[in-house]
Amino acid sequence: MGGPEIDHLIGLLAKLPGMGPRSARRAALKMLQQPETRMLPLAAALTEAARRVRPCADCGNLDSQDPCTICADPHRDRSMICVVEGVGDLWALERAMVYHGLYHVLRGTLSPLSGIGPEDLNVATLLSRITEGDVTEVILALGATVDGAATAHWLTDQLHPTGVTVTRVGQGVPMGGALDVLDDGTLAAALRTRRAN
Amino acid sequence: MGGPEIDHLIGLLAKLPGMGPRSARRAALKMLQQPETRMLPLAAALTEAARRVRPCADCGNLDSQDPCTICADPHRDRSMICVVEGVGDLWALERAMVYHGLYHVLRGTLSPLSGIGPEDLNVATLLSRITEGDVTEVILALGATVDGAATAHWLTDQLHPTGVTVTRVGQGVPMGGALDVLDDGTLAAALRTRRAN
Repeated sequence: MGGPEIDHLIGLLAKLPGMGPRSARRAALKMLQQPETRMLPLAAALTEAARRVRPCADCGNLDSQDPCTICADPHRDRSMICVVEGVGDLWALERAMVYHGLYHVLRGTLSPLSGIGPEDLNVATLLSRITEGDVTEVILALGATVDGAATAHWLTDQLHPTGVTVTRVGQGVPMGGALDVLDDGTLAAALRTRRAN
Repeated sequence: MGGPEIDHLIGLLAKLPGMGPRSARRAALKMLQQPETRMLPLAAALTEAARRVRPCADCGNLDSQDPCTICADPHRDRSMICVVEGVGDLWALERAMVYHGLYHVLRGTLSPLSGIGPEDLNVATLLSRITEGDVTEVILALGATVDGAATAHWLTDQLHPTGVTVTRVGQGVPMGGALDVLDDGTLAAALRTRRAN
Protein backbone atom coordinates (compact mmCIF):
# COMPACT_ATOMS: atom_id res chain seq x y z
CA MET A 1 0.00 0.00 0.00
CA GLY A 2 2.72 2.45 0.94
CA GLY A 3 6.04 0.90 0.01
CA PRO A 4 8.22 -1.71 1.73
CA GLU A 5 9.24 0.61 4.60
CA ILE A 6 5.71 0.69 6.04
CA ASP A 7 5.14 -3.07 5.65
CA HIS A 8 8.52 -3.80 7.27
CA LEU A 9 7.76 -1.47 10.20
CA ILE A 10 4.31 -3.01 10.74
CA GLY A 11 5.86 -6.49 10.64
CA LEU A 12 8.36 -5.61 13.38
CA LEU A 13 5.78 -3.82 15.55
CA ALA A 14 3.41 -6.79 15.27
CA LYS A 15 6.05 -9.03 16.87
CA LEU A 16 6.13 -7.01 20.10
CA PRO A 17 4.43 -8.69 23.06
CA GLY A 18 0.84 -7.53 23.31
CA MET A 19 0.75 -6.32 19.71
CA GLY A 20 -0.82 -8.01 16.69
CA PRO A 21 -1.15 -7.06 13.02
CA ARG A 22 -4.12 -4.82 13.76
CA SER A 23 -2.59 -2.81 16.59
CA ALA A 24 0.73 -2.71 14.72
CA ARG A 25 -1.02 -1.05 11.78
CA ARG A 26 -2.68 1.48 14.09
CA ALA A 27 0.60 2.23 15.83
CA ALA A 28 2.50 2.59 12.54
CA LEU A 29 -0.15 4.88 11.11
CA LYS A 30 -0.23 7.07 14.21
CA MET A 31 3.54 7.40 14.16
CA LEU A 32 3.72 8.00 10.39
CA GLN A 33 1.44 10.96 10.87
CA GLN A 34 3.83 12.48 13.43
CA PRO A 35 7.29 11.28 12.31
CA GLU A 36 9.25 14.01 14.10
CA THR A 37 7.47 13.85 17.45
CA ARG A 38 6.66 10.12 17.57
CA MET A 39 8.82 7.94 15.33
CA LEU A 40 12.26 9.52 15.63
CA PRO A 41 12.11 9.80 19.46
CA LEU A 42 11.17 6.12 19.70
CA ALA A 43 13.94 5.16 17.25
CA ALA A 44 16.43 7.16 19.33
CA ALA A 45 15.22 5.62 22.61
CA LEU A 46 15.58 2.11 21.16
CA THR A 47 19.07 2.80 19.83
CA GLU A 48 20.17 4.40 23.09
CA ALA A 49 18.78 1.53 25.21
CA ALA A 50 20.33 -1.11 22.93
CA ARG A 51 23.66 0.69 23.15
CA ARG A 52 23.77 1.39 26.87
CA VAL A 53 21.73 -1.22 28.72
CA ARG A 54 23.66 -4.33 29.76
CA PRO A 55 23.21 -7.07 32.39
CA CYS A 56 24.77 -6.13 35.75
CA ALA A 57 27.87 -8.27 36.26
CA ASP A 58 26.91 -8.75 39.92
CA CYS A 59 23.19 -9.53 39.87
CA GLY A 60 22.11 -9.84 36.22
CA ASN A 61 19.67 -6.89 36.37
CA LEU A 62 19.47 -4.86 33.14
CA ASP A 63 20.81 -1.33 33.58
CA SER A 64 22.78 1.36 31.83
CA GLN A 65 25.30 1.33 34.66
CA ASP A 66 27.32 -1.63 35.93
CA PRO A 67 27.07 -2.43 38.83
CA CYS A 68 23.35 -1.66 38.38
CA THR A 69 21.47 1.10 40.21
CA ILE A 70 20.28 -1.38 42.84
CA CYS A 71 23.66 -3.05 43.48
CA ALA A 72 25.31 0.40 43.66
CA ASP A 73 22.69 1.87 46.03
CA PRO A 74 24.26 2.33 49.50
CA HIS A 75 20.80 2.35 51.12
CA ARG A 76 20.06 -1.22 50.06
CA ASP A 77 20.18 -3.96 52.70
CA ARG A 78 23.23 -6.01 51.67
CA SER A 79 22.41 -8.87 54.03
CA MET A 80 19.59 -10.15 51.79
CA ILE A 81 19.57 -11.41 48.22
CA CYS A 82 16.26 -12.13 46.53
CA VAL A 83 16.66 -14.66 43.70
CA VAL A 84 14.26 -14.17 40.77
CA GLU A 85 13.91 -15.96 37.45
CA GLY A 86 13.97 -12.84 35.28
CA VAL A 87 14.33 -9.09 35.20
CA GLY A 88 10.53 -8.77 34.82
CA ASP A 89 10.13 -10.34 38.29
CA LEU A 90 12.68 -7.88 39.70
CA TRP A 91 10.72 -4.99 38.14
CA ALA A 92 7.48 -6.30 39.68
CA LEU A 93 9.04 -6.47 43.16
CA GLU A 94 10.54 -2.98 42.78
CA ARG A 95 7.16 -1.56 41.73
CA ALA A 96 5.59 -3.13 44.82
CA MET A 97 8.18 -1.27 46.97
CA VAL A 98 8.16 -4.04 49.56
CA TYR A 99 11.75 -5.21 49.39
CA HIS A 100 14.93 -3.26 50.07
CA GLY A 101 17.66 -5.87 49.78
CA LEU A 102 19.67 -6.94 46.75
CA TYR A 103 18.60 -9.20 43.88
CA HIS A 104 20.02 -11.97 41.82
CA VAL A 105 18.57 -12.72 38.38
CA LEU A 106 18.82 -16.44 37.61
CA ARG A 107 17.85 -16.04 33.91
CA GLY A 108 15.40 -18.92 33.90
CA THR A 109 14.77 -22.12 35.82
CA LEU A 110 16.10 -25.62 35.54
CA SER A 111 14.01 -27.33 32.90
CA PRO A 112 15.12 -30.81 31.81
CA LEU A 113 12.39 -30.90 29.14
CA SER A 114 13.71 -27.68 27.56
CA GLY A 115 17.31 -28.76 28.01
CA ILE A 116 18.09 -26.02 30.56
CA GLY A 117 20.61 -27.28 33.09
CA PRO A 118 22.55 -25.69 35.98
CA GLU A 119 25.26 -24.40 33.60
CA ASP A 120 22.64 -22.25 31.79
CA LEU A 121 21.67 -20.37 34.95
CA ASN A 122 23.39 -17.36 36.51
CA VAL A 123 24.42 -19.29 39.65
CA ALA A 124 28.23 -19.09 39.93
CA THR A 125 28.15 -15.36 40.70
CA LEU A 126 25.40 -15.93 43.28
CA LEU A 127 27.64 -18.33 45.21
CA SER A 128 30.62 -15.97 45.04
CA ARG A 129 28.46 -13.03 46.14
CA ILE A 130 27.38 -15.02 49.21
CA THR A 131 30.86 -16.19 50.15
CA GLU A 132 32.45 -12.78 49.56
CA GLY A 133 29.70 -10.51 50.94
CA ASP A 134 27.70 -10.03 54.13
CA VAL A 135 24.69 -12.01 52.98
CA THR A 136 22.77 -13.76 55.74
CA GLU A 137 19.54 -14.63 53.91
CA VAL A 138 18.70 -15.72 50.37
CA ILE A 139 15.01 -15.42 49.49
CA LEU A 140 13.93 -17.62 46.60
CA ALA A 141 11.19 -15.77 44.70
CA LEU A 142 10.75 -18.25 41.87
CA GLY A 143 7.52 -19.04 40.04
CA ALA A 144 5.09 -21.48 41.63
CA THR A 145 5.63 -23.97 38.81
CA VAL A 146 7.10 -27.47 38.68
CA ASP A 147 10.33 -26.06 37.23
CA GLY A 148 10.35 -23.22 39.78
CA ALA A 149 9.93 -25.65 42.67
CA ALA A 150 12.63 -27.99 41.30
CA THR A 151 15.00 -25.06 40.87
CA ALA A 152 14.30 -23.83 44.41
CA HIS A 153 15.03 -27.29 45.77
CA TRP A 154 18.26 -27.58 43.78
CA LEU A 155 19.39 -24.05 44.74
CA THR A 156 18.74 -24.76 48.42
CA ASP A 157 21.13 -27.74 48.15
CA GLN A 158 23.72 -25.61 46.37
CA LEU A 159 23.51 -22.87 48.99
CA HIS A 160 23.59 -25.24 51.99
CA PRO A 161 27.43 -25.33 52.34
CA THR A 162 27.59 -21.52 52.58
CA GLY A 163 25.55 -21.59 55.81
CA VAL A 164 23.25 -18.83 54.57
CA THR A 165 19.56 -18.94 55.54
CA VAL A 166 17.45 -19.89 52.50
CA THR A 167 13.76 -18.97 52.46
CA ARG A 168 11.01 -19.10 49.85
CA VAL A 169 8.25 -16.57 49.26
CA GLY A 170 4.87 -17.61 50.68
CA GLN A 171 2.16 -19.18 48.60
CA GLY A 172 -1.56 -18.70 49.05
CA VAL A 173 -4.59 -16.60 48.17
CA PRO A 174 -3.58 -13.46 46.25
CA MET A 175 -4.80 -10.12 47.63
CA GLY A 176 -8.27 -9.35 46.33
CA GLY A 177 -8.60 -12.92 45.08
CA ALA A 178 -11.77 -14.97 45.49
CA LEU A 179 -11.29 -18.55 46.65
CA ASP A 180 -13.69 -20.08 44.16
CA VAL A 181 -11.56 -19.18 41.16
CA LEU A 182 -8.27 -20.46 42.58
CA ASP A 183 -6.70 -23.70 41.45
CA ASP A 184 -6.36 -26.68 43.81
CA GLY A 185 -2.62 -26.24 44.26
CA THR A 186 -3.02 -22.67 45.48
CA LEU A 187 -5.84 -23.65 47.82
CA ALA A 188 -3.71 -26.49 49.23
CA ALA A 189 -0.77 -24.10 49.72
CA ALA A 190 -3.03 -21.52 51.38
CA LEU A 191 -4.35 -24.13 53.84
CA ARG A 192 -0.87 -25.49 54.52
CA THR A 193 0.54 -22.06 55.32
CA ARG A 194 -2.41 -20.99 57.53
CA ARG A 195 -1.55 -18.87 60.55
CA ALA A 196 -3.19 -18.05 63.90
CA ASN A 197 -5.27 -14.91 63.62
CA MET B 1 15.11 0.14 38.26
CA GLY B 2 17.47 0.08 35.31
CA GLY B 3 18.43 3.66 34.53
CA PRO B 4 16.63 6.45 32.69
CA GLU B 5 17.01 4.82 29.24
CA ILE B 6 14.68 1.95 30.13
CA ASP B 7 12.07 4.19 31.78
CA HIS B 8 12.13 6.55 28.80
CA LEU B 9 11.71 3.68 26.33
CA ILE B 10 8.81 2.19 28.31
CA GLY B 11 7.15 5.61 28.45
CA LEU B 12 7.30 5.99 24.66
CA LEU B 13 6.15 2.43 23.97
CA ALA B 14 3.20 2.88 26.36
CA LYS B 15 1.93 5.76 24.23
CA LEU B 16 1.49 3.56 21.13
CA PRO B 17 -2.12 2.71 20.28
CA GLY B 18 -3.06 -0.61 21.84
CA MET B 19 -0.20 -0.50 24.34
CA GLY B 20 -0.32 0.38 28.03
CA PRO B 21 2.29 0.53 30.80
CA ARG B 22 2.09 -3.23 31.31
CA SER B 23 2.53 -4.31 27.69
CA ALA B 24 5.16 -1.57 27.21
CA ARG B 25 7.22 -3.09 30.04
CA ARG B 26 6.88 -6.56 28.51
CA ALA B 27 7.85 -5.28 25.07
CA ALA B 28 10.84 -3.31 26.43
CA LEU B 29 12.06 -6.29 28.43
CA LYS B 30 11.74 -8.67 25.49
CA MET B 31 13.69 -6.26 23.28
CA LEU B 32 16.34 -5.53 25.93
CA GLN B 33 17.08 -9.22 26.06
CA GLN B 34 17.72 -9.29 22.29
CA PRO B 35 19.07 -5.81 21.51
CA GLU B 36 20.80 -6.78 18.26
CA THR B 37 17.98 -8.79 16.75
CA ARG B 38 14.99 -6.88 18.11
CA MET B 39 15.72 -3.31 19.19
CA LEU B 40 18.16 -2.10 16.57
CA PRO B 41 16.11 -3.44 13.61
CA LEU B 42 13.01 -1.67 14.97
CA ALA B 43 14.98 1.54 15.53
CA ALA B 44 16.28 1.35 11.95
CA ALA B 45 12.80 0.65 10.54
CA LEU B 46 11.38 3.65 12.42
CA THR B 47 14.16 5.95 11.26
CA GLU B 48 13.88 4.75 7.68
CA ALA B 49 10.08 5.13 7.61
CA ALA B 50 10.25 8.60 9.19
CA ARG B 51 12.87 9.64 6.64
CA ARG B 52 11.26 8.23 3.50
CA VAL B 53 7.48 8.07 3.97
CA ARG B 54 5.61 11.21 2.91
CA PRO B 55 2.02 12.01 1.90
CA CYS B 56 1.43 11.55 -1.85
CA ALA B 57 1.04 14.99 -3.43
CA ASP B 58 -1.82 13.66 -5.56
CA CYS B 59 -3.99 11.62 -3.18
CA GLY B 60 -2.59 12.07 0.34
CA ASN B 61 -1.72 8.37 0.82
CA LEU B 62 1.45 7.75 2.85
CA ASP B 63 4.21 6.17 0.78
CA SER B 64 7.96 6.20 0.25
CA GLN B 65 7.42 7.19 -3.37
CA ASP B 66 5.55 10.23 -4.69
CA PRO B 67 3.22 9.80 -6.56
CA CYS B 68 2.36 6.85 -4.31
CA THR B 69 2.36 3.20 -5.41
CA ILE B 70 -1.39 3.34 -6.07
CA CYS B 71 -1.39 6.62 -8.03
CA ALA B 72 1.59 5.38 -10.07
CA ASP B 73 0.07 1.95 -10.81
CA PRO B 74 -0.93 1.79 -14.52
CA HIS B 75 -3.36 -1.06 -13.77
CA ARG B 76 -5.55 1.13 -11.55
CA ASP B 77 -8.87 2.34 -12.91
CA ARG B 78 -8.33 6.11 -13.28
CA SER B 79 -12.02 6.82 -13.82
CA MET B 80 -12.88 6.34 -10.15
CA ILE B 81 -11.68 8.13 -7.02
CA CYS B 82 -12.68 6.79 -3.62
CA VAL B 83 -12.61 9.54 -0.97
CA VAL B 84 -11.64 8.34 2.52
CA GLU B 85 -11.12 10.19 5.81
CA GLY B 86 -7.71 8.75 6.55
CA VAL B 87 -4.93 6.46 5.38
CA GLY B 88 -6.18 3.74 7.75
CA ASP B 89 -9.42 3.58 5.74
CA LEU B 90 -7.41 3.31 2.51
CA TRP B 91 -5.40 0.43 4.03
CA ALA B 92 -8.63 -1.34 5.06
CA LEU B 93 -10.07 -1.08 1.53
CA GLU B 94 -6.79 -2.30 0.01
CA ARG B 95 -6.71 -5.30 2.35
CA ALA B 96 -10.27 -6.16 1.29
CA MET B 97 -9.06 -6.19 -2.36
CA VAL B 98 -12.47 -5.08 -3.58
CA TYR B 99 -11.56 -1.75 -5.17
CA HIS B 100 -9.22 -1.04 -8.05
CA GLY B 101 -9.64 2.68 -8.66
CA LEU B 102 -7.72 5.60 -7.18
CA TYR B 103 -8.10 7.15 -3.73
CA HIS B 104 -8.18 10.56 -2.18
CA VAL B 105 -7.36 10.99 1.51
CA LEU B 106 -9.36 13.86 3.01
CA ARG B 107 -7.38 13.94 6.30
CA GLY B 108 -10.46 14.17 8.53
CA THR B 109 -14.04 15.35 8.30
CA LEU B 110 -15.67 18.71 8.73
CA SER B 111 -16.26 19.12 12.44
CA PRO B 112 -17.52 22.53 13.61
CA LEU B 113 -17.28 21.41 17.26
CA SER B 114 -13.57 20.58 16.84
CA GLY B 115 -12.98 23.68 14.73
CA ILE B 116 -12.20 21.70 11.56
CA GLY B 117 -13.40 23.60 8.51
CA PRO B 118 -13.12 23.10 4.72
CA GLU B 119 -9.68 24.74 4.64
CA ASP B 120 -8.32 21.99 6.94
CA LEU B 121 -9.26 19.20 4.52
CA ASN B 122 -7.33 17.95 1.49
CA VAL B 123 -10.01 19.11 -0.97
CA ALA B 124 -8.34 21.52 -3.43
CA THR B 125 -6.25 18.74 -5.02
CA LEU B 126 -9.36 16.53 -5.28
CA LEU B 127 -11.11 19.18 -7.39
CA SER B 128 -8.07 19.70 -9.61
CA ARG B 129 -7.64 15.92 -10.05
CA ILE B 130 -11.24 15.69 -11.25
CA THR B 131 -11.05 18.64 -13.66
CA GLU B 132 -7.67 17.60 -15.05
CA GLY B 133 -8.11 13.81 -15.17
CA ASP B 134 -10.50 11.23 -16.62
CA VAL B 135 -12.55 10.80 -13.46
CA THR B 136 -16.19 9.89 -14.00
CA GLU B 137 -17.18 8.76 -10.48
CA VAL B 138 -16.25 9.86 -6.98
CA ILE B 139 -17.19 7.34 -4.28
CA LEU B 140 -17.51 8.86 -0.82
CA ALA B 141 -16.36 6.23 1.71
CA LEU B 142 -16.63 8.35 4.84
CA GLY B 143 -17.56 7.14 8.30
CA ALA B 144 -21.23 6.68 9.14
CA THR B 145 -21.10 9.47 11.70
CA VAL B 146 -22.77 12.88 11.93
CA ASP B 147 -19.53 14.56 10.82
CA GLY B 148 -19.02 12.00 8.06
CA ALA B 149 -22.53 12.56 6.74
CA ALA B 150 -22.17 16.35 6.89
CA THR B 151 -18.83 16.14 5.07
CA ALA B 152 -20.34 13.88 2.39
CA HIS B 153 -23.18 16.35 1.89
CA TRP B 154 -20.82 19.32 1.66
CA LEU B 155 -18.44 17.46 -0.71
CA THR B 156 -21.34 16.51 -2.98
CA ASP B 157 -22.16 20.20 -3.29
CA GLN B 158 -18.52 21.07 -4.00
CA LEU B 159 -18.25 18.37 -6.68
CA HIS B 160 -21.56 19.21 -8.38
CA PRO B 161 -20.12 21.83 -10.81
CA THR B 162 -17.57 19.30 -12.14
CA GLY B 163 -20.38 17.09 -13.47
CA VAL B 164 -18.78 13.96 -11.95
CA THR B 165 -21.07 11.24 -10.58
CA VAL B 166 -20.90 11.23 -6.77
CA THR B 167 -21.88 8.05 -4.88
CA ARG B 168 -21.72 6.95 -1.24
CA VAL B 169 -20.84 3.49 0.07
CA GLY B 170 -23.87 1.49 1.18
CA GLN B 171 -24.97 1.18 4.78
CA GLY B 172 -26.56 -1.85 6.38
CA VAL B 173 -25.99 -5.08 8.26
CA PRO B 174 -22.26 -5.96 8.29
CA MET B 175 -21.30 -9.43 7.03
CA GLY B 176 -21.60 -12.00 9.79
CA GLY B 177 -23.44 -9.47 11.93
CA ALA B 178 -26.51 -10.44 13.99
CA LEU B 179 -29.43 -8.01 13.79
CA ASP B 180 -30.15 -7.97 17.51
CA VAL B 181 -26.86 -6.27 18.36
CA LEU B 182 -27.09 -3.53 15.73
CA ASP B 183 -27.98 0.04 16.59
CA ASP B 184 -31.23 1.63 15.38
CA GLY B 185 -29.50 3.79 12.77
CA THR B 186 -27.92 0.78 11.08
CA LEU B 187 -31.20 -1.15 11.16
CA ALA B 188 -33.01 1.83 9.60
CA ALA B 189 -30.34 2.11 6.89
CA ALA B 190 -30.54 -1.63 6.21
CA LEU B 191 -34.32 -1.45 5.76
CA ARG B 192 -34.09 1.67 3.61
CA THR B 193 -31.56 0.07 1.27
CA ARG B 194 -33.40 -3.26 0.97
CA ARG B 195 -33.28 -4.99 -2.40
CA ALA B 196 -35.36 -7.59 -4.23
CA ASN B 197 -33.98 -11.07 -3.70
